[in-house]
Order: sequence, then C-alpha cells, then structure tokens
Amino acid sequence: MSKRVIIVGAVALGPKVACRLRRLDPDAQITVIDRDNLISYGGCGIPYYVGGDINDLEGLCSTSSHVLRDPAFFRSSKGVNILPRVEAMSIDRDKKTLHIRHLDTEKKEALPYDKLVIATGATPVRPPIPGADLPRVFTVSNLHSARDIKDTISKGKVGRAVVVGAGAIGIEMAEALTDLWGVDTTIVEMADQILPAALGKNMSRVVEMELKQNNVTILLSQKVDKINGDDTSGVTSVEVGGKTLPCDLVVMSAGVRPNTRFAKDAGLAVGSSGALLVDRGLRTTDPHIYAGGDCVELRNLVNGENMTMPLGSLANRQGRIIANNIHGRASKFKGTVGTFCIKAFDMAAAKAGLTFAQARAIGYDPVHAVVAQSDRAHFYPSSRIMYIHLIADRKTRRILGIESVGGQGDAVKARVDAVAPLLSAGIDVDEVCSLETGYAPPFASAMDIINNAGNVLDNILEGRNVPMDPVDFVREFAKDQIQVMDVRDPKEAAPFIEKYKDKWMNIPQDQLRDRLDEVPSDRPLCLVCGTGARSYECQVLLNQKGFDNVCNVQGGHAMILAVAPDFMDI
Amino acid sequence: MSKRVIIVGAVALGPKVACRLRRLDPDAQITVIDRDNLISYGGCGIPYYVGGDINDLEGLCSTSSHVLRDPAFFRSSKGVNILPRVEAMSIDRDKKTLHIRHLDTEKKEALPYDKLVIATGATPVRPPIPGADLPRVFTVSNLHSARDIKDTISKGKVGRAVVVGAGAIGIEMAEALTDLWGVDTTIVEMADQILPAALGKNMSRVVEMELKQNNVTILLSQKVDKINGDDTSGVTSVEVGGKTLPCDLVVMSAGVRPNTRFAKDAGLAVGSSGALLVDRGLRTTDPHIYAGGDCVELRNLVNGENMTMPLGSLANRQGRIIANNIHGRASKFKGTVGTFCIKAFDMAAAKAGLTFAQARAIGYDPVHAVVAQSDRAHFYPSSRIMYIHLIADRKTRRILGIESVGGQGDAVKARVDAVAPLLSAGIDVDEVCSLETGYAPPFASAMDIINNAGNVLDNILEGRNVPMDPVDFVREFAKDQIQVMDVRDPKEAAPFIEKYKDKWMNIPQDQLRDRLDEVPSDRPLCLVCGTGARSYECQVLLNQKGFDNVCNVQGGHAMILAVAPDFMDI
Repeated sequence: MSKRVIIVGAVALGPKVACRLRRLDPDAQITVIDRDNLISYGGCGIPYYVGGDINDLEGLCSTSSHVLRDPAFFRSSKGVNILPRVEAMSIDRDKKTLHIRHLDTEKKEALPYDKLVIATGATPVRPPIPGADLPRVFTVSNLHSARDIKDTISKGKVGRAVVVGAGAIGIEMAEALTDLWGVDTTIVEMADQILPAALGKNMSRVVEMELKQNNVTILLSQKVDKINGDDTSGVTSVEVGGKTLPCDLVVMSAGVRPNTRFAKDAGLAVGSSGALLVDRGLRTTDPHIYAGGDCVELRNLVNGENMTMPLGSLANRQGRIIANNIHGRASKFKGTVGTFCIKAFDMAAAKAGLTFAQARAIGYDPVHAVVAQSDRAHFYPSSRIMYIHLIADRKTRRILGIESVGGQGDAVKARVDAVAPLLSAGIDVDEVCSLETGYAPPFASAMDIINNAGNVLDNILEGRNVPMDPVDFVREFAKDQIQVMDVRDPKEAAPFIEKYKDKWMNIPQDQLRDRLDEVPSDRPLCLVCGTGARSYECQVLLNQKGFDNVCNVQGGHAMILAVAPDFMDI
Repeated sequence: MSKRVIIVGAVALGPKVACRLRRLDPDAQITVIDRDNLISYGGCGIPYYVGGDINDLEGLCSTSSHVLRDPAFFRSSKGVNILPRVEAMSIDRDKKTLHIRHLDTEKKEALPYDKLVIATGATPVRPPIPGADLPRVFTVSNLHSARDIKDTISKGKVGRAVVVGAGAIGIEMAEALTDLWGVDTTIVEMADQILPAALGKNMSRVVEMELKQNNVTILLSQKVDKINGDDTSGVTSVEVGGKTLPCDLVVMSAGVRPNTRFAKDAGLAVGSSGALLVDRGLRTTDPHIYAGGDCVELRNLVNGENMTMPLGSLANRQGRIIANNIHGRASKFKGTVGTFCIKAFDMAAAKAGLTFAQARAIGYDPVHAVVAQSDRAHFYPSSRIMYIHLIADRKTRRILGIESVGGQGDAVKARVDAVAPLLSAGIDVDEVCSLETGYAPPFASAMDIINNAGNVLDNILEGRNVPMDPVDFVREFAKDQIQVMDVRDPKEAAPFIEKYKDKWMNIPQDQLRDRLDEVPSDRPLCLVCGTGARSYECQVLLNQKGFDNVCNVQGGHAMILAVAPDFMDI
C-alpha cells in the first residue's frame, strides 16, 4: 500500500518535504495542510517587500521563473496536494490519525497517516505591553501582516515609527521604513547593544553607527512600558523610560515562539524553548512523527547545547533530510553553528558560533581579537575596510566564534562562511592563520583579513599582543584614563594632538627605534595607528626595550572611527 | 650568541619571515638579500597596474598607509636589514656559509648563517619560440617588466597584442590591454580551453565567452610557432597555425619555473617540477635551510601528490610559519587544496581541489554536477545568475573539486571558500547538501546554490538525475543528434520551436502530467528549462511514468546561453 504522509505547515519546510518526497516516491499519498491561504513564501523577504526592493507580494511566493506557488501549482507541477485554510487540532498517536478543521467551513476531519511531519514554524512574540493590541501595532508574522504594514505606510499616514527589539527583523524593518518611506524610526532594545544574540559589542557598535548615520534612532538598555492610542485611530505614542515617543506605527520584533501546542498536547517532548526535541534524523519522540524548521530545537555544534535557529535556510535543508528519511534513506541533520548574516543600509554583518559573552556565560575563558583591514588588496581601487572579531578558548585555542562587518556584503559573508563549516570540527587558531581561501587582488589581500585575524588572536593568546578593545578605548579615553601614543605619520596625528594636547603624543613607527628616550615609562601607554598593525609592532618593540606597561588599540583608528564616528567631538 | 639568519629573496615570503622573526626575536641578526633593487611588492597586482586600476608602480610596493616598502622602511620600521642588488651564488652547507655577489660592485662575500631561508620565487617561462627575444616580447616577471609593458603601451604604439597562454596571468593581462588601452588582443592557448589547470570545460567556456564579448580574441588548441620582427622595431607579427597575426606586443604567460639552481647545486632535493622539496615545517632536506613560496613543492591535500602553487597568499602564510620554526615554536604548513580565483571583466571564477579532468587522470571515477541559480534570493533586485560545478568520486562520494563562475565576484569566491577548507578533510556530498552558510535574502537563497549543487550531485550519484552537460548539449544539438523537450512556458519556448521546428517541442511542466501521451518514447529526449530544476523534476516524472530514455540539460537555458551566447544562430 502506498505511504500516507501528512505535513502540517506549508511555508518553507513543509513544501520542501512534500516535493522531495514526491520525486523519491511516485505513489506516496502526500497531503500538506496550512491554516493560511497564502503558502510557500519567502518570509525572510518581508522587510524587502515593505522597503520596496520587491514591489509585489507575489514576488515572495513565486518561483524564480515567476510562477505563483499556489495549491494549483503544487498540484500540476509538483504532484503535491496542499489544503489551505486547514488547521491541525490534535494528534491521536495510537491510531496514527491527525484531526483537522477546515477553517472556512468549520468541517472537521480525521486523517490517518503513516508518517506525520510537523512544520508549523514559529510566531512572533507580542510582549504583554499595555496597548500591544492597538491598531497599527504589528508583528512581522506572515504575508498578511506584511501587506498590512505596507498598506498602512503607503497611505502616507506614517511619519514616525517605533521598532521594539534590535534583532535581525527589527533592524531590517527599520531600514525598510527609513530608506523607502522616510519614516522617522526609533528602535528600542532592552539589551545594551543591538543584535545582542549575534555580535560582540564592538561589531554591533559598527552596525549601530551605520543605522544612526542613516537616521535611525536607537535606544539601548530601554524598554517600551506602554503603547498609547485608541481602537479607532490606533497607536499615537509609546512610553519609554518615562518619556513619550509620538508614533504612528509600532513593529514588534522581540523574538518568536515555536508553534507546538497541538504537538505538545499529543505528548511529544519539547525543550526549554518550547520547541520540539528531535533526533539527528529529525524524528520527534514519536518515531512516526518528524519535525523541522522554526518549531524544533537544534544542536548547537559549538557548545553541544540545544538552541532554536529560525531561518528559512536551515528549514529547507532539513526538509530534504526528512523526505529522505520518510522514504527510507537514512539522512542526518547534525545541527547548527548559528551562521547568520544581515544587511543594514550600506553595511553587512555576519557571524557564526558563539559571541564572546555567550562563550563566557557557559564557562569558556574566551580570548578575542579585532582586526581592521581592506577586504581586497589595499592597492585595488574598490577596496573597503572590513572588520573581523574572532573568539577562541584560551586553554584549548579552539575557535568559538567569528563575526565580520563591512561595506561589501558578499565579501563579509565570504569570510564567515569560510570558517563556519569548520567550527563544529573544533578547529584551532593555527588553522585560521593558514586558512586557504581564494586570492586575487580584486578579492583579497595576499595575507587575507581572515588569516590576519588568526595571526592577531594567536599573538594575543601567546601574550605577545597586548590588546585594548576599541570600544573600551573610547570609553576610557573619554574618562581621561589613557595616555595615547600615535605611531602614524605626524600629519595624521596632528589634529589629535591639537585637540587632546598632552593626552595624545606622536612618535611615528619609523622613528621609534631612535626616540625611545621620549617614550614615557612612568604610566600606561596606549598605542594607536591606522588599523592596529603598526601599533602592535611598536608595542612589541617597546616590550623588547623594557617598556612593560604598553597596549595597542585593536583595529586602530579605523575601528575607533567605526565605533565612535564622533570621537573627535569627545 | 644571537642567531644569524639569512633570507634569499625579498618579494613576498622573504620579508614576511624577516619581520615576523624580528618580532619574535629582538636579537637575531637578520639579513635579506635580493638581486633586484625593487623589493617587497605585490607581483599579483601587475596586471592592474598595466590596466590602470593602479596608477603608479609605488602603489604595488607601498603599505596600506602609503609608505614605500624600501630598505630604509624595513630598517627603520621593521628592524630588518635588506640588501638589494645582491645575488646568492652558492651555499657551503658544511660551513653553513652563503656566498654572495654584489651586483653593482662585483664584490663577493661569504656570509655565515645559523639558518638560511630560500625565498627565490619563480621566473616566467619564455618558451623557445623563434623570435622570443625580440623587443616588445615581454614576460610578466617583475616590476621592471611591468613598467616596460606599460611604458610601451602608453606611448601609443601598440594597436594589437598577442598573449601566449590562457592561464590566470594571460587572462588578466588580456583584460588590462583591452579594457584600458583598447588594444586589439588575441590569446593563443595550446589546450582546448582557457584556464585548463583551474576549471572544467563548462565553467571555462563561460569565462571564455565573457572575454570574447569584451573583444578579446581567443585561439584554442593552437600555438605560436614563430615571432616575426627585428631588433630595431621589435615584434611585428606572430605565426599561429600557418597564419600570420600582425601585432606590436607579445606577452608570454606560459607558466613559471622555480628559481632553485643554486639550491640544487648545493645538493638540496627538488621534485619533478624542479621546485624544492620541503617537509611540513618548510625545511628542505638540510634541516638548517628553510624554503617557501613559489620555489617549493607543496602537498596537494586532495590527492596527496606534490604540486607547485605560485601564489602570494600561500607565500605569506608560509613566511609566518618559517619564522615560527626558526624561533623554535613548531609550526606546520600542511599543504594546499589549490584554491584560486580570478576576475575577468565583469565575471569572476573561483575553484578549489581537482578539475574533472585532473581527477580522472589520476584514477578517480569522477561524477560532476552543474548548477545555475541566483546568487541571492531570486526576488532580491541585485540577484544575478551564478554557476557552480561540483565534482565527487563516484565510489566514496568524496568531494574532489568545486568551481564557481558569476558576475558578483565576492559571492563567487564565498561559495568556493566555504568548501575549500573542508576538502582536505575529505567531506562527502551530503555535507555540501547541508553546508551551513549565512542566509539573508540580500546575500543568498534559502536553499543556497552551494547546497543545491550538493543536492544535484547527490541525485546524479543516486542515478535519479540523468544529466547532460551543457557544453555536450550544444555540440550534439548542432549535430542534429538531439530531440529537445522544452518544459518552460510556451512563450519562452516559442522562438526555439520556430527556429528548430520538430527538433524542439514544448510541454510546460504544469501540463506534463496530463499530456504524457504526447511525449515521444521512441527516441532519446533531452529536457530543457530555465536553470535545470524543472527539467530534472520532469525527467523524474517521466522516469516514474516509464519513459527511460530521458535526460536533462544541467543549468538549463541559463547555462546554454552562458556557454554558447550564439546558440540561436546555430
């Protein structure tokens, strides 16, 4: 008898399982249900639809050859039956039956299955803030909310917006609102940095500055206490830390919650996040029920803990594996190293593995390096400065995480993608020093920034490089705690000496060997150059000459300006 | 007593060893010698200097902060002594003495060493063609020849040029000559494709078409038999396959030969390439003598054989390792997977590992997949088609090589760089299917092209996908050997049906299930769609319905047009 397979959820993973399985098995009875009438769409594209990069909603639910991915398409082109507007009510696991309800007719049905796939995804959290249900307070949940947000803005009634949460979706939505629509946008974030789950303080600060320079206001370490307005005219303002911010639209982007209620009710095990537990074959605790995508916990391959990683990319890869397993071809999904990337105006950021804070929180003794360098040969015309933050465990020298930020997004992503697949194997710093990536002047330096990040981290681990983080430097310098020695050319140092007087001295690197008697030895000295390479060399020389109390600012002046564009105004 | 270290060669690896060693050891007596007066330059940048991307030669021998890297710079900033215009004559290994000659004074000296480093690089081969020594026949050997070439062109006397050899330097020089100077340029290559050591036929064809569309003439499977001209006016033409090509300039880019004569004379072992043999610590067969860069053989980490890989990137990474080892900190350079990338006008290509032909030549049974797909989410405005060629061993499913070509170079490089570092570990196809690279619509599809390349190759290995290579398709179709079924939209298929009549039929994918009776079963059928995804699905459906003699064109119409832009003129 042919296999009966029911798939609950028709956005990313569900259709992928169905189509792959159909190609593996012409006879299987495959049914996909979804509560929504809009199915198989690229939810990650919503900010780009709102921001006008994509004109029509259809763009997000069409194939690359511009065919609408509706139930008719799945039937005729893929041989797959998709039932929209159908809700999964409960699972009778003993009888292997799924109870469903047709939302338009209220008709109920019991569907027997041989294999069931749960692909119900996750729903944005709507924090319990008074006023969170007012009109024009949105979450970015699906294409309906996407259309509602864009319709609201395009009617021209939105002058000011507040985005709650500075994660990926919050930032992408802030860019969409600001860039296309000129909406005066404020992001409110409870943590003391943007993208707290993804980036260290220094890298997040670079992205934060890019947002600010594009007129996005960012309020850190603050939260929205109340949303004001009424049911007729909708939101009119929000209360943040005792202040009232007038606004016409609120976007809630404070994380997501896995849609697992009916699965939990059926007794399937869930993890601490509320998402389903699955084995490497993506089977739940019931061997006849598979699950994947945003509603499951995945193994973090760096620290071995479980985590959720709601990304369409992982969902699609898992979908193929579930189909293989249902068909009887053993396939495994090992887990995730949390690879992530984001565009923010003319900057991009990418990361994989753990942040410094995450590593420390779970008991590692992390050591980190910050490097600023051209993303291509420095003499190549289109080169731009890129920043890399590399994190390793002090004892084992194992790489725990990598972050990158820069102006040429593909190049930023290239550096993280080259390291990410190695993280689960536990590579150490030396392997990053010698990592073999492609080299030609239009695309990389001979000693690529990724290798240099390894070299710098190696030097720090060996105690040879005594680093100061650029964010710490800016903060401490503002407190008058630091004496700077600028080792750049006198012309470059001159405006700083003029402004900061005796807090800022200049001995160019090429003169240092002959002017050692001018170097103060009675107080800590912080060396600064253009990107951190020369200041390191000078620090080593000074150490060799007996100056012990010397450090150097990582990423140099490039990094100082990136984290504090107003440094000269301090 | 402080260690005496002599380094022969001051271009890439030599200065790197010297500077790193100085930071590790303030007391070492470090001397670097070089025959040339121009040192420490980015030789890989020469084509961009000739092509005008870089205006001055100084750009290639300056630091990122625009300081000239001359001996004075190395002395004052790095604490390293570089002697230009000094040639290494011979090594007395018993007495650990290097005999040198000062080229300007003819003075000879004997320098004792504790450790010697050979960083003599490689010299372009000047093939023994009659006339190869005529004026205006150049190799791209160093900054002197770079200046000579640019001076010759900028005097306006060069209307036509011939480039001998279609490797990386030949292609980069052809672009430089054509793009900036409008020189009518012809590349003559002995192999039947460009970049024969780097790319398969299909990917090389895409790059070849890009060159042709930018007015570079390419002659494959041909060689220059004679160079005509005289010693006064220089080259006037070349003879190729019985024809005379008038030209005013010839660039020889037919490979390089390692500079190892004095090392061989001293009894150090060399490999079949003539380059020095070194262990993983980059020691030659004399433990007091290290070598690295273009003059050594490296272990190919995919097939275990030795190879040369003359790239500044590898030289720099090796330089650090040699310095570590001299200082007593054991460091290893494991080898290379041959990662490579190149820009050719508005295209870029990258590769790592073995080509299909190389894999077959050494005894593998290679299987390959070609995929065409957007380099970012297909709905994202700046997305462009990218091509990936993935090669695995049939029996073990181990990935042997990856090649990528596309219009956004950093994105092309990102795909290859993500796989390259894994090649030496022997990853299999399944790991590419699930490779975790960063995902956001501005930078990737949810199912990224790299994962899809894995999926397609998996399907081919499983016998599910019956592929036809696009280059083979174009050739066979021109021979009237193929019946095509186009499964795209009727409007897309119409011009092909009009032109090719009954050789080209159309049943759109969404109608195929209902029109099976129209599918010819009496002859082989080749399915074509936009990028190869739909034609594969249709091929599987037809197989399931009993049609056995069906294949599909990999990369679809996108790939056909990329390898044969004139396909409609066939």
